[in-house]
Amino acid sequence: MIECALTVIKEPLVEETVKIRVPPSDLADNFGKWRDTGEEADVTFNVRGETFHAHKLVLAMRSPVFKAQLYGPMGDRTARNITVEDMQPDVFKELLHFIYSDSLPSPENPDEENGNMVKHLLVAADRYAMERMKVMCEASLCKSLTVETVAATLALADQYHCSGLKDACIEFAISCNRMGGVVASQGYGHLKRSCPAVLGDILERVTKSPRV
Amino acid sequence: MIECALTVIKEPLVEETVKIRVPPSDLADNFGKWRDTGEEADVTFNVRGETFHAHKLVLAMRSPVFKAQLYGPMGDRTARNITVEDMQPDVFKELLHFIYSDSLPSPENPDEENGNMVKHLLVAADRYAMERMKVMCEASLCKSLTVETVAATLALADQYHCSGLKDACIEFAISCNRMGGVVASQGYGHLKRSCPAVLGDILERVTKSPRV
Repeated sequence: MIECALTVIKEPLVEETVKIRVPPSDLADNFGKWRDTGEEADVTFNVRGETFHAHKLVLAMRSPVFKAQLYGPMGDRTARNITVEDMQPDVFKELLHFIYSDSLPSPENPDEENGNMVKHLLVAADRYAMERMKVMCEASLCKSLTVETVAATLALADQYHCSGLKDACIEFAISCNRMGGVVASQGYGHLKRSCPAVLGDILERVTKSPRV
Repeated sequence: MIECALTVIKEPLVEETVKIRVPPSDLADNFGKWRDTGEEADVTFNVRGETFHAHKLVLAMRSPVFKAQLYGPMGDRTARNITVEDMQPDVFKELLHFIYSDSLPSPENPDEENGNMVKHLLVAADRYAMERMKVMCEASLCKSLTVETVAATLALADQYHCSGLKDACIEFAISCNRMGGVVASQGYGHLKRSCPAVLGDILERVTKSPRV
């Protein structure tokens, strides 16, 4: 028996020897920089006493609601100062940040305070019809579910029609014998009062699942 | 001897059971759509008889040269119609496409015609100081090098200070006994006349490399 060891020497490709590294997309950086400097801003928002400068065109390109407000037939094309009601300044600031930079604040830090901010951002995303931002908030909340918080998050998911987050909350609650803790948690009473139909959804899921 | 088979049942994470899929960034889509429709465009470019509508703010956010031209102290802030000299309309069209959408036309199709377009786009990127676009053109040209085209590409790389592409061209030319074919190619005469110093660069590299 003859054993042959073959070594195939391939012609070196240029890409293998000299690499031209293409830097990552700088679209968000380019826009974010103008948000930070406020250069050429043409609209000012007043949010509970705090002032934010922005560019009407960028807002309208990113949010259909801003588009209607700033350029639509029912909107005011000459508006230079807009007052925003029912929103905290720090939430509006992060909304603007997302509009320009396409990223949420430190999403890898799922502590309680960040969770509350993400809930407010989900509400803001819903209000300005920023669909992707809303799903990113859902995904962030989904990662930080606990027995203590899941009932409140479920109520929010139901109120803002977040079907993915709602499913995730129910799945989390009925898994691993957590249901007792959930019923005893602070948010459960609010869930029961504000979205009683959701309790039916949980019950139906429980009857299909052998895990409780 | 007693053999034990242990099965560790890990608590299921919610992420594993219910996944919330975050869609990819839609920043480029949002901006690209407004480029396509020309909605709220506030500047018009005339390129050899063809007309292109655009948004001054987006151009200025993406290109320092457009920024200076449209908003700078030496520029004309009231300009609504701008004539672009020394550029083909289809090249300007793709430049606008990149400005809004952050992508080059079909970069995965490295035929000769596309290669020529990419060369024109590299020149346009250099003219408007679009650094990332320039590097993407370099990387695209680097992938489509042939013995026939490498001399012309090397001349271009030298003229527009593309050090990565220049290195790649020299490396390609001196590898695998290609140098004879390169010297016989159509672009070599032009390279020799327009950038004689590059021939010195090749020679120095050859003396360091045992591959020719």
